Formats: sequence, structure tokens, C-alpha cells
Amino acid sequence: MTGTTLDDYTDRYARRVRGMTASEIRALFAVASRPEVVSLAGGAPYIAALPLDAVGEMLGKLGSEHGVTTLQYGIGQGTLELRERICEVMALSGIDASCGASPDDVVVTVGGQQALDLVARLFLDPGDVVLAEGPTYVGALGVFQAAQAQVVHVPMDDDGLIPEALEVAIADLARTGRRVKFLYTIPTYQNPAGVTLSEERRERVLDICERAGLLVVEDDPYGQLGFEGEAPRPLRARRRDGVFYLSTFSKTFAPGLRVGWILAPHAVRDKLVIASEAQILCPSGFAQAAVTTYLSTMPWREQLKIYREVYRERRDALLGALHDLMPEGTTWTRPTGGLFVWASLPDGLDAKAMMPRAIAARVAYVPGTGFYADGTGTGNMRLNFSFPTPERIREGVRRLARVMEQDLAMRQVFGTVGPTGSRRGGADAPGPDLA
Amino acid sequence: MTGTTLDDYTDRYARRVRGMTASEIRALFAVASRPEVVSLAGGAPYIAALPLDAVGEMLGKLGSEHGVTTLQYGIGQGTLELRERICEVMALSGIDASCGASPDDVVVTVGGQQALDLVARLFLDPGDVVLAEGPTYVGALGVFQAAQAQVVHVPMDDDGLIPEALEVAIADLARTGRRVKFLYTIPTYQNPAGVTLSEERRERVLDICERAGLLVVEDDPYGQLGFEGEAPRPLRARRRDGVFYLSTFSKTFAPGLRVGWILAPHAVRDKLVIASEAQILCPSGFAQAAVTTYLSTMPWREQLKIYREVYRERRDALLGALHDLMPEGTTWTRPTGGLFVWASLPDGLDAKAMMPRAIAARVAYVPGTGFYADGTGTGNMRLNFSFPTPERIREGVRRLARVMEQDLAMRQVFGTVGPTGSRRGGADAPGPDLA
Repeated sequence: MTGTTLDDYTDRYARRVRGMTASEIRALFAVASRPEVVSLAGGAPYIAALPLDAVGEMLGKLGSEHGVTTLQYGIGQGTLELRERICEVMALSGIDASCGASPDDVVVTVGGQQALDLVARLFLDPGDVVLAEGPTYVGALGVFQAAQAQVVHVPMDDDGLIPEALEVAIADLARTGRRVKFLYTIPTYQNPAGVTLSEERRERVLDICERAGLLVVEDDPYGQLGFEGEAPRPLRARRRDGVFYLSTFSKTFAPGLRVGWILAPHAVRDKLVIASEAQILCPSGFAQAAVTTYLSTMPWREQLKIYREVYRERRDALLGALHDLMPEGTTWTRPTGGLFVWASLPDGLDAKAMMPRAIAARVAYVPGTGFYADGTGTGNMRLNFSFPTPERIREGVRRLARVMEQDLAMRQVFGTVGPTGSRRGGADAPGPDLA
Repeated sequence: MTGTTLDDYTDRYARRVRGMTASEIRALFAVASRPEVVSLAGGAPYIAALPLDAVGEMLGKLGSEHGVTTLQYGIGQGTLELRERICEVMALSGIDASCGASPDDVVVTVGGQQALDLVARLFLDPGDVVLAEGPTYVGALGVFQAAQAQVVHVPMDDDGLIPEALEVAIADLARTGRRVKFLYTIPTYQNPAGVTLSEERRERVLDICERAGLLVVEDDPYGQLGFEGEAPRPLRARRRDGVFYLSTFSKTFAPGLRVGWILAPHAVRDKLVIASEAQILCPSGFAQAAVTTYLSTMPWREQLKIYREVYRERRDALLGALHDLMPEGTTWTRPTGGLFVWASLPDGLDAKAMMPRAIAARVAYVPGTGFYADGTGTGNMRLNFSFPTPERIREGVRRLARVMEQDLAMRQVFGTVGPTGSRRGGADAPGPDLA
């Protein structure tokens, strides 16, 4: 086995290895993190807004005074103390005892990512279909790919997932005899689209899934980060059963601790714990103690207000810069919370083909194709506003606009742009109307 | 879907959910952790031996001075800084540049558990066979069960896995046309058996696997915890290809941080990173910084010596108490490192059936059946010596001996013991000869 190649491993041991490919976002990370590049590509919270001195003091004590427990093994489900605090956090958005939420049904996870992976692990068999918004969270596509499931996208508009389109997708799949397991949805301040499922549609989407016998996997990392009043109540607040509610402290406290959770239907909570133990044995006791203590002793509700204020200001900076600087024909969403704006480029521009020129011009974004399982999204890009300062955002958009204008001028001369010359998915593509 | 039951979920969505059952160890945890119970059941390191004041100070600074990076997202593979330190740790046991070890091929994981789960995720398809020592790590059985793979145990003796038995197992499986993917082995200070694969057998086991085209998954959480000189070099130090080397800081620093790693064959390292990103996005930046800083600035080699000394003293206490107190017919292994002793009970005693009486007598252990996929091990138990003090260990063995003597007396009177009346797997069972 000297000099064993990937082919040796894949041919001999696992064909599935070959199917696993890295996301486009990942490949971008290295270049986008250079200091001279204005990165609108990430999805990172603005950690500098935290009171780091106080957080550091808290973390130190958790080691020196409580290390015998915080640095030791714990139970797979996560500590009761943290699960109780998590229930307080969920109660803020209406998921409380009245709809059956209980610490007993919370499973602490390694960020929202493991929460989703566990649900997939339990419910997805190879060949299963998952319905998801198009575009959707790139990390969810990775989970479904690893589970060898197929994603069928359902389009959105400014009010989020379109119920009629969901019904059509379910009916089409039923006709072809495909086995659909669940709808994966980010109803509030969606990543990457930045739109929110309207109050009225929430009940309809739930009814449609209930009638079709589909589970609902509700991913809600951004629900606490609204800039303009309250978001509509989560889907889980409206249904006890059939809804898995996933969230994380990555956006509201700190992603580097990797603490998220699932609120699971009671009947399967124990199975999720067993699946999690097989994956990670138990979540970090130190990270759990950090989040518990943060929520118990520090002004976390005030900190949420700070995050909201910082992000609102940056969203305004991004929307303002887009309005002032983008070439004609560009459209974008206007998020009322969260971290992202989804832009649609003028006809003929290809966000993926344009990337090398954008990086050369010292600006980065994520091409829309990263958020689809089916190659859609060439004419789209995701723009992040949570991490860069307002000044950097404006400078980034200025650089981006210049690249786009050059591409448009080239296109006028040569009729095509970029190495691939590919066009955005037009009216025939199953893409969203997010303009 | 009101009042949905587990049956609803399993019947409608996932039959695999039904197959997932909790380990016996897990059920024991709640009772065994009561203060009045002497627990020989756990596998926890003695965290109180750490310099917690200094560790706390270090953790505090990582938050207050470096929080902007340590509390932020990171890359899926883990930080280069930590991967470099990990290579220094591996070099101590002979896994160094001379056998191709490089930070580039290290993937940081959520403890050793995720390391194993990732390898299983990449290589195991439902119905595949995994060869493993019998008995083996209970968490590995959970991973293989979740992957819907079948475990075939290979017996050990005092020198570890028996090469001839490995050859027989491979030949038997080949005859039945079963697809075997890899050998999972803990060659050094094995959990739960406490035995170590001898120098001479290491080459033979590698040769056998190489001839049979099997990958080797080498799990080495305890290799640094030897009491009597150096352990034989790990399998990975002897082969560049075909060996996945898994380890963790859970036993040498702190399990509550959940930091482990895989040293992967170069050809598949990137696939492991992609699989890990699908599971957890990235390992905790804070935990990684904690381990990196611990290894860079604190006397970790001295701390290893302290751990070794503490555990050696406790092993001696356990072996001494077993010698002084155990009823005739009991045998046990004599580990030269690690955390565990494996005991074989006098003929007719059933360690699982005896558990309620042991708990009533305020002592806990793990019945041997937990370490087999096939129901073997009724006449065995695992005894941990890393966590309880020498005095507690002796008191625990005293209580245990009394329960065993009562069971033996009952057996003499009634011919059977315990609620099930089951016997240990006798000479016909495929169990190890660990006496």
C-alpha cells in the first residue's frame, strides 16, 4: 500500500468518498481572509462587539474554580443547566411550555451544524429527497450530500418560501414515486436570501407539510437578530409535533465555542442523544459552562441589542452602497434581520466566472451557485454585512461595482464574459424571484 | 401529528432509528455518579491533578486578549498551530517526519470519538464488516452500529490481539463473501482489556491486514500513559499508508475541551475534512487555542509524568485489592498503562445480573457485555482506576467482593443467581482469554 492514492481508497473501500466535494465557500476562505480584501463572503458575527474582558474573566474562573467539572466528561444530551437556559432563550420567540418546549427535549450540539447533521443521520437514507429553499444554507447542502440524499429546491419571493411552489414540488415528487423525508427551512432572515417567511405563510407551509406527512426541520440561527421589530413566531411555536427546531449561540454569542441545540419531538429525543454520542460522545463541558454562565450572569439581552444595532447599521450601509453604486439591472433583497443580502446581477453576468477578477480587485463574495444543489445561481451572489465595518462595506461595493461594470463592458464588446461564458439561470431555471 | 410516538417516526421516516440503542455504560452513569457509590465504572481522567489555577489564567487570557480569533469561526481542518503541536506530541511515540507525519495530514476533531466516526462515515456502508478486538471500546461499537456495520470480534490474550485469530476471522469472512473494510484496534493499554499488543505482533498484524487489503484504524488515546517504560511504537510509526491514527487530549489534558485528531493517509485527508465540515463545520477555536497554548507554554511533559504516577499508584491499589479480596476463581489483567483492568468472574457469576446488587452495595463497574457487539462478556467486568483515589478503590473492591461472595453462596444454594440466571459465555463463546 505504499504511495496509496485517492483512487486506491475510493475504488477499494468507498465509492462515496469520491462524491464528497468541498463547498465553494471553503475554497474562497483562504483568499477572502487576506487583510487587503474586503470580504463580503463570510458569515461571521462581529465578535469585537462582545465585552471580551468580562468574557475572559468568566472563562478564566470556569477553569480555575470549576475546572474539575468543566474540563471533565459530561453527558451526551448536554447539561441540564444549559438546557434550562436554552429554554429561556427560546421562550423569547414564543417557544415555551405552552407549546411543549422543555429542557428534557433539548439536545445540546456542536453548533447548529451538528444539530442538522444529527437529524439527517437519523432520518435520511441514501436516495431520499429533502425539500429546501432555493437558495439555501451551504452547510445544509453538505449534510445532505454526505447523507447521499437529493435536494429539491423550492423557490422563494420577498415573503419567503412560496407555499404554492411547495405544493407543486411535493406533487411532482409523489408522481415520480420519490421518498421525501422532510422540508429543511430557514424561515427567518434566511441564509443566503435574507428574506423572512411571512406570518400568513407559516401556517400554510405547516399545513402543507402535515398533509403530505413531511417532517419540518426549522433552522433558526438568526431569529434574535431582527432590526425592525419582532419576527413572526417560529414554526415550532405553532406545532408540537413533526417540527425539529435547530438553533445556535454562534450568531448571538460566539461561534468559536461551537454550542448549538435541537429541540426535538419528545418521541425521538433519546435517539438523537444516542446518535450524538456516537458522533462526539458528549458536547464540551467547558463550552457549555461558558454559555450557561454567560446567560446566567452577563447582560446577554443587552448584548443582543448591541449586535442588532451594529448589524442594522451595516445592513443600511450595504443597502445604501448597493443603491448608489451598483450598475443598472442589479437587484437585491432588503433583509429585516440576519447577516445577508442576496443580489441578482444584470443579465449576462456570471458571479462565479467573475470571482477571480473580483479577488484581483480586492473584494470577495460568495457566488450564488454555492447555495444550490443543482447548479442554479450563476447570476446571483451572497453579500455579508455582519463582519465588515460600514466604511469597508461601502469600499467593497465600490470595488465590486467596478468589476461588474468592466464585465458588462466586455460583454458588450465580445458578447460574453469570463472563462466559462456561462449565463445566469434565466426564466426557465427553477430559481427564486428575489428582486 | 398530535401526540406523535416513536413508532410513528420509525415507521414513517426511518427504520434505522429503531436499531439505535443506548450503551449499558450510559445507563450506569446516573447511578454510578452518586457520591456514596464507589465508581469503578467510568473512564474519566483525574482532572484535579492539573494545575487548575494556571489553566484558568490561560483560558481567561484566551478570551480577553485573543477572543476576536478564539471565539470566531475557524477552518474545518483545525488551526495550523495546533496541528503542528499535535505532530510534536506524536513524535514522542515515534510518529514523525521519518514516517511521513505532517501537520498537513492532521485533522482536528471533537475528541477521539468524532475521529472514529469520521473514518466510519467515509468508509463504511451498511452491511460492511469491521474487525475489532473482543472486548473493544464501547463508543466504537456505537459508531459501527450507527453506520449499520457489523462487528466481528477477534480475541486477545495478554499480548493483545492474537494474529492467528485475526487470520482465521479474515478467512472465515472471505469464505462467506462478507465485505470487510478495516481492523479497528487499540493496540496500547487497550480499553477495556488493559493489555498491549506486543512488539513482535505489531508487524504481523500489519502484514496480515496489508495482505488482506484491510485498512487499519489505530486508536491510541492512552499511549502516553505507560507506567513501566515505553510502549511499543504505534502501528502508524511503522506504515505510512493504510493506517489511520486516532488520538485525543482527553486523557492527557482535559476531556471537557473535546479535542482529538486523526493523522490520515494523505490521499484521503481532504475527504475527512469535508466530512467533518458537514458534521460540525469547524472544531472549537477556543478549545483549539486552549490546547495549543497549553502545549506551547505549560509544562505538559511534566504533567504527563504526574498523570502516569497518579495512575500507576491507583493501578497498584486496584491490583493489590483484587489480589487481597477477590473470591477464588476471579482473574484479571495487569495493565502496564492506561486506565482499566479487565476482570473475569468465577464460573457461574453474571456481571450484568449482579449490577443491581452491586449498586445497592454502593459500588459500580461496567459489565463485560457492554464491550461486545454479540452478547459475549457476561462473566467479565471493566474496572477503572484513574478516577477514584487508592482508598476508594480498595473500599470499592471490598464491596464488590462481598457482593460476589453472596452471589456465589446463593448459587451454591439455588444453582443460579440473579434475575436472569444467565451464565458467562463459556469455552464455546468467542471470548478472549484474558486471565
